[in-house]
Amino acid sequence: MRSLEWLAGKLPEAGLAATIDGIGNVLGTSAKSGPKLLAGSHLESQNYAGWLDGPLGVVYALEAARVINSDPTATGSVEVAAWCDEEGHFGSFLGSRSYVGDVSDAVIDAARDRTSGRTMREVLHDVGLAGRARAGAERGRHIGYLEAHIEQGQILESDALSIGVVTSIVGIWQYRINFTGEQNHAGTTRMAVRRDAGLALARFCVAIDDRFAAHCGPRTVWTTGRITLEPGAPSIIPGGAEMLFQIRDADPAVIGRLEDLLRSMAAEVTAQGRGSVTMECIRTGVPAMMDGAIQHAIETASSAFAGGKSVRMPSGAGHDAQILSTIMPAGMLFVPSIGGISHHWTENTADADIVTGAQVFAEACRRLLAR
Amino acid sequence: MRSLEWLAGKLPEAGLAATIDGIGNVLGTSAKSGPKLLAGSHLESQNYAGWLDGPLGVVYALEAARVINSDPTATGSVEVAAWCDEEGHFGSFLGSRSYVGDVSDAVIDAARDRTSGRTMREVLHDVGLAGRARAGAERGRHIGYLEAHIEQGQILESDALSIGVVTSIVGIWQYRINFTGEQNHAGTTRMAVRRDAGLALARFCVAIDDRFAAHCGPRTVWTTGRITLEPGAPSIIPGGAEMLFQIRDADPAVIGRLEDLLRSMAAEVTAQGRGSVTMECIRTGVPAMMDGAIQHAIETASSAFAGGKSVRMPSGAGHDAQILSTIMPAGMLFVPSIGGISHHWTENTADADIVTGAQVFAEACRRLLAR
Repeated sequence: MRSLEWLAGKLPEAGLAATIDGIGNVLGTSAKSGPKLLAGSHLESQNYAGWLDGPLGVVYALEAARVINSDPTATGSVEVAAWCDEEGHFGSFLGSRSYVGDVSDAVIDAARDRTSGRTMREVLHDVGLAGRARAGAERGRHIGYLEAHIEQGQILESDALSIGVVTSIVGIWQYRINFTGEQNHAGTTRMAVRRDAGLALARFCVAIDDRFAAHCGPRTVWTTGRITLEPGAPSIIPGGAEMLFQIRDADPAVIGRLEDLLRSMAAEVTAQGRGSVTMECIRTGVPAMMDGAIQHAIETASSAFAGGKSVRMPSGAGHDAQILSTIMPAGMLFVPSIGGISHHWTENTADADIVTGAQVFAEACRRLLAR
Repeated sequence: MRSLEWLAGKLPEAGLAATIDGIGNVLGTSAKSGPKLLAGSHLESQNYAGWLDGPLGVVYALEAARVINSDPTATGSVEVAAWCDEEGHFGSFLGSRSYVGDVSDAVIDAARDRTSGRTMREVLHDVGLAGRARAGAERGRHIGYLEAHIEQGQILESDALSIGVVTSIVGIWQYRINFTGEQNHAGTTRMAVRRDAGLALARFCVAIDDRFAAHCGPRTVWTTGRITLEPGAPSIIPGGAEMLFQIRDADPAVIGRLEDLLRSMAAEVTAQGRGSVTMECIRTGVPAMMDGAIQHAIETASSAFAGGKSVRMPSGAGHDAQILSTIMPAGMLFVPSIGGISHHWTENTADADIVTGAQVFAEACRRLLAR
């Protein structure tokens, strides 16, 4: 709330009227005539994370609004947004999804903070936002949405580039894979007769790593982020085991291929008779394509302010731009992140890169509004 | 407490004075002159477990005491014990270890129920045992300790045998194995540069299963009972991973060989440079040898009451007899368990096997006292 109120206090300096809405989005709206570009990112972050993901994108938007909205020679205005819940403390992109009309009151009723377990309603009440209206997008108001972010990877750093021009935001497919064996005593059950669900899971993880490479795309990534053995006691052979598995790619055809492979591997394990495997797809994310004209504007601005040191690249991480892209043209700009680190307090970007990024961002906004 | 009080109420019928002591052990002591044999097992069990592990052994002891202590032709008497905490709700064999003098007050102060988290002191207070003295073994009082238990395996059942004569109780060695990689974003970190601690752990589990067989003994068993990935989120590459790993064998030389192999495998992973592995031995259990004269008495009793259908075998599970064996000759007798199931409500033994076991048990007690 302190950061949202700080932003709301700064927006009038950029000629914008500030609102904190009923879900915790901050919106700065302009009364100026002419085209309007929406720019922003998020002020919340992961717990114990760094300082740039995502406040950098909000501050870039604020800076672009300051420069352009007060410039009598510039066309139109930049409006600013800071979306709540980008990092998914309560759900999945609840702030930007609320703005595009994709979040019902029932979804908010059911949302809980994944760390504390407190309900979103309780938290909204405690910070004084209960009963406030949620702001919704006014269709046709904006010519597009622009968001800046740190890369969270090392491509720009490795190639000594300043700007990433995002072409698409990858889709995320997530699976819950369950292994069923036979729970038994870890002392009295001979190795030959065991049906150890945990061992079956470990073999499956290794098989994925060995076999996915031959079927994936050049930028596909896959991750087993959580493993749970049941009952999870040192003296009991696990009768059940679960893994949360995620695949990301910008191409749904690649995902389809890998999902087929995964299902056939699961069937092989079950056929071997030492246990059974079931697989449930719990999240499906269609990739979001970034607007071509916005990509072009960022590239042109990079030529002017970053010596042309830009590259087109997909985003492997999800961003609010993928939500905004469902109702308006959207684009994203990346700046380098040192060592590719994010979601950690050591996350950082060189001062010079931060300044260059701000100049390119503001110039891209100016060019998009002037078209 | 209901079961402890039930037993305390039955002991006088066997000519024994009953005590429930300050840790929840039940002891029935005899005023009869002549040699004394201690017999017993445990009344508590795993949560949601079956009816025989370990009340069967307590009821056998009670039955032997009833038969022998009132028989004017029998020499000496059987004293009965029901040990608390055999299943390790609060610690590790706290009841029998208290009796042999291996548990200080500080250990009890620190003990907590692994399920509810309540302290042992709190629980002892709530059931009315606070402030009561703990009973300690009187050295030289007993000629030995005899315990009966279901097999918790399928050796007797497979070979249509009635009695297992336990030769030794395996040692349990337990390890905490930690993998350190690099925590990173599951979307933006390319597969080629990942240092995934969870994947390293999965490969290690599979390597253990592939390589242990060539170095283990005929009855060695090993189990990974728990796996934890850090931070355990679906969109984060695990930077840390931990497994609880256990090896059981009756021969410390086999354990030594496997521990060497484990350490060299850990060193190989670290040498490969994708992460590091550390290994900590958190539990070391020297195997307990069962007394030869007691084994002989059980075999002789089996010839008389079980048609000689007995076999000598080690115990893969831990039992209070291993604790008692540190201060007196100790022995154990197994009866078959259907399907080898234990620690589950379906645990069972055929009525005829239960009766045969009781007859062999009482006869073995009689013979040991008559020597």
